[in-house]
Amino acid sequence: MTALEQQLNFIIELDKLKSIYRQALIKSDHNRFENSAEHSWHAAMLAPILQQYAIAEINISRVMTMLLIHDIVEIDAGDMFAFADNNALLVQTEKEMAAAKRIFGLLPESQASSFMQLWSEFELAQTLDAKFANAMDCLLPLLQNMNNSGGSWARHTVTKSQVLKRNQHLEHLAPKLWQYVNTQVTVALQKGWLIDD
Amino acid sequence: MTALEQQLNFIIELDKLKSIYRQALIKSDHNRFENSAEHSWHAAMLAPILQQYAIAEINISRVMTMLLIHDIVEIDAGDMFAFADNNALLVQTEKEMAAAKRIFGLLPESQASSFMQLWSEFELAQTLDAKFANAMDCLLPLLQNMNNSGGSWARHTVTKSQVLKRNQHLEHLAPKLWQYVNTQVTVALQKGWLIDD
Ligand SMILES: [Ca+2]
Repeated sequence: MTALEQQLNFIIELDKLKSIYRQALIKSDHNRFENSAEHSWHAAMLAPILQQYAIAEINISRVMTMLLIHDIVEIDAGDMFAFADNNALLVQTEKEMAAAKRIFGLLPESQASSFMQLWSEFELAQTLDAKFANAMDCLLPLLQNMNNSGGSWARHTVTKSQVLKRNQHLEHLAPKLWQYVNTQVTVALQKGWLIDD
Repeated sequence: MTALEQQLNFIIELDKLKSIYRQALIKSDHNRFENSAEHSWHAAMLAPILQQYAIAEINISRVMTMLLIHDIVEIDAGDMFAFADNNALLVQTEKEMAAAKRIFGLLPESQASSFMQLWSEFELAQTLDAKFANAMDCLLPLLQNMNNSGGSWARHTVTKSQVLKRNQHLEHLAPKLWQYVNTQVTVALQKGWLIDD
């Protein structure tokens, strides 16, 4: 198989991410479930829009690419609700690792390994780029839920500390966004969309 | 309104692109129509994957951002089938211009004007970055249709010359992909998915 054929097979494989549905609801489309492809688009859009709030230097092109590819593993592993229990999340991590090997492995070797590294960097969330990318991925559902009467939170009895923990990368990386998250969580408690704990 | 509030309003507005449906069909999801948000994700993914076939230097970060934002105007203007007649396409261009002003105008001024410029550059398709971004946007439906028994072509009686014209940016910018498009169009003719003209 030529490099081009491998790349085109990978591109066709990506179509499947449009059939992986998440817990988030699309308010503008009759509250249907959101799929991981459109979520990835929206998350990637957040990066250039909110970049100015990062107090450290980030590479916006790497951050956008991370966000574009971060959920591709769900084609094999499926989506797992962010607030699932720890055992379920551990099993999910193993499934996603195998998925990354298979799906990125469709690409020519050097491209496969560069996507694989970028995906692992996102998952480990140790570098500034990966922390900012993760922060965008976590902030987005908060914005969606706050604009949709609690959205997926209200349906799953999520707690205040779960949401704060999930958005914690913002605390040191983008304090102004962290402050915003805290005010929104307070509103969500008052509305009964999140549970106090 | 603070800059952050403007940016968050824009982010929430973007959710609506997930309710704009195109003519393309998603094979992996029971052949439902594709929406413009998931299409934008897929098109943005093509850029880094196929970048090596551009024989001129392109700025991949600009190309990806163009592809992420290129359809946002459809939130107001709706989607127009690529092979609609010229009068319909002209009316659409005016609607999209007004949409760009309103939607990008939700952002703080400097960000609004930078997105507006990037979107116009994509639409005019004069620069190398814009030509490559347009080429990715046009190549993607060809790949989807070829992998789905003709997909949207077969349903709309599209001709060979329409598809070649639509992909013509590739001829000088990425000859290897142009060659691929030509072989695929020949196959599509043989299968009866495109009409000879
Ligand atoms: Ca995610």
